[in-house]
Amino acid sequence: MPDPAEFDNLRVVLVATRNPLNLGAAARAMSNFGFLRLRVVNPYDLAFREARSAVGASELLARAEEYKEVGAAVSDCSLVVGTTAVRSREVRHSLRPLKQGARLIHKEFRSSRVALLFGSEKVGLSNEALSHCHWLMHIPTREDHPSMNLGQAVAVCLYELTRDSRSLPEPAKLQLASADESERLTSVLLEALRTCGYLHPESATLTDTKVRRLVRRLRLSAQDAEVWVGMLRQILWKLRSGK
Amino acid sequence: MPDPAEFDNLRVVLVATRNPLNLGAAARAMSNFGFLRLRVVNPYDLAFREARSAVGASELLARAEEYKEVGAAVSDCSLVVGTTAVRSREVRHSLRPLKQGARLIHKEFRSSRVALLFGSEKVGLSNEALSHCHWLMHIPTREDHPSMNLGQAVAVCLYELTRDSRSLPEPAKLQLASADESERLTSVLLEALRTCGYLHPESATLTDTKVRRLVRRLRLSAQDAEVWVGMLRQILWKLRSGK
Repeated sequence: MPDPAEFDNLRVVLVATRNPLNLGAAARAMSNFGFLRLRVVNPYDLAFREARSAVGASELLARAEEYKEVGAAVSDCSLVVGTTAVRSREVRHSLRPLKQGARLIHKEFRSSRVALLFGSEKVGLSNEALSHCHWLMHIPTREDHPSMNLGQAVAVCLYELTRDSRSLPEPAKLQLASADESERLTSVLLEALRTCGYLHPESATLTDTKVRRLVRRLRLSAQDAEVWVGMLRQILWKLRSGK
Repeated sequence: MPDPAEFDNLRVVLVATRNPLNLGAAARAMSNFGFLRLRVVNPYDLAFREARSAVGASELLARAEEYKEVGAAVSDCSLVVGTTAVRSREVRHSLRPLKQGARLIHKEFRSSRVALLFGSEKVGLSNEALSHCHWLMHIPTREDHPSMNLGQAVAVCLYELTRDSRSLPEPAKLQLASADESERLTSVLLEALRTCGYLHPESATLTDTKVRRLVRRLRLSAQDAEVWVGMLRQILWKLRSGK
C-alpha cells in the first residue's frame, strides 16, 4: 500500500453522524485503505461511543479527534472538500466527480493537509458546513437512486484516493507451455482420437491440423499442459489395453 | 450513468451471507451503481428476510434469485470471478487487483454474462465456490488490515466497474463457453478419468475440484468446448466398450 506519510495528510471529517454502524464502517474503510486520521464533528453521542467497538478499527476510533464545529475541525487544512449526493446544489460550489476530484486532492496532500467532509445520513452537509468547503465532490451514481450509504461512500472515496497511488504489481505471470509441450499434448490427444475411432484416416491431415490449432488455443500454462498430457496418456493406455 | 443493457449482464452473487445489514448494503450499492441483478446462494434465512427492507433497494432484493449451490447460480455465466481479501491463496487461481480485473470483466460483459462472487463475512469463499471461478480479484488494501466489510467491498467493486464506463474497450469477439458448457466438459472428462483409473476413489472430491479448475482455466470458446466434449465422449465410449 501507499506511502503512509502522504496519507497522513488526509483528515476524514464525519459531520453529525447518527448511526454508530456507519461511524464504525467509515473507520474500518479508513483503516483498510491506510488513512488513519479521523475527525468527528458533533456526532450523536451514543453513536460515537458505540462505534468505538468497530471491527478492526477501534484504535483509529479511540484516537479520533472530536470537534464542536466544522470550522475548528478543518482549521489546519489547506484544502477542504465536501461530499454530496446532490447534483445541483443551490450553493455556488464547483462540483467534481470523484475521479477528477481525487486527482486534485492527490496533488494537494503531497505537501499539505486536506479535509474530506461527509455529512449526516439524513441531510448531508449543512449550508454552514458547506461554507467551509473549497469545492464539492460526488460519486457518479444512478439518477434514480443517487444517495449512498455513508460507510460505503467513505470506502469508495478512499479507494479512489489510493487507486493510482502506486503502480501495482501485475499478477504473477504463468509460465505458458512451450510449443514443444503443446505438441506433446497434441500428439497424445491425436493418438487417443485415432485409437477410439474419432479420426478417420482419409481426412487425417486436415484433422491433425484442426486438433493442433485446438490445443494451441487453450493457452495452457506449462504446469497444466503436463497434467493434461498425464491424463491423456492414462486414457490412451487404457484404450489400448482394452482392445 | 452507463448503459443499463450492458450492466444487465452482471450477476452479483452473494454466497452464504450471514448479516442482513450486509445483504441490504450490498443491494443498495448495486442499486446506486445500476447493477440490478442479485443472486444469493444459501444466505442465512433470517438475514435474507430481514434484508428485504433495505433502504432504497427493496425491489432489487425482492427480485433476487435464490440458489442452493454456487454451480447453479453461475450456470448461465461465461466468466465467473471470485473476490478475496487473501493475497496468497494456496489454490492456483490468478489473482488480479480490482483495477485490472474490472477491465477484463468489462470486455466480457459487453457480450455475455459475468458472475461476481462475494463470500461470507467470516470465511470468504469456500474451496468449492472457488472451484467455479475462472480467476480471483482483490481490492488493494493495507497489509495490516486487508479484510473489508462485505457491503463496502461490493460498493468499491461496482464503483470500479462503472468508473470508466464511457470509454469501454471493444467487446470480445468470441462467444465464450458458459459455465454450463464448461461443466459438461468437466463431467465427461471426470468420467473418462474414472474409467481409466486416473482418479482414485479415496481422493475423488479433491480431484473433482482440481479438474474443474483445470477446465475453467482453458477459457474455451463455446465452439471449442463442443468439440472437446465430442472428442471426450467418443473416447469414453471406447473406454467403456473395450472393457
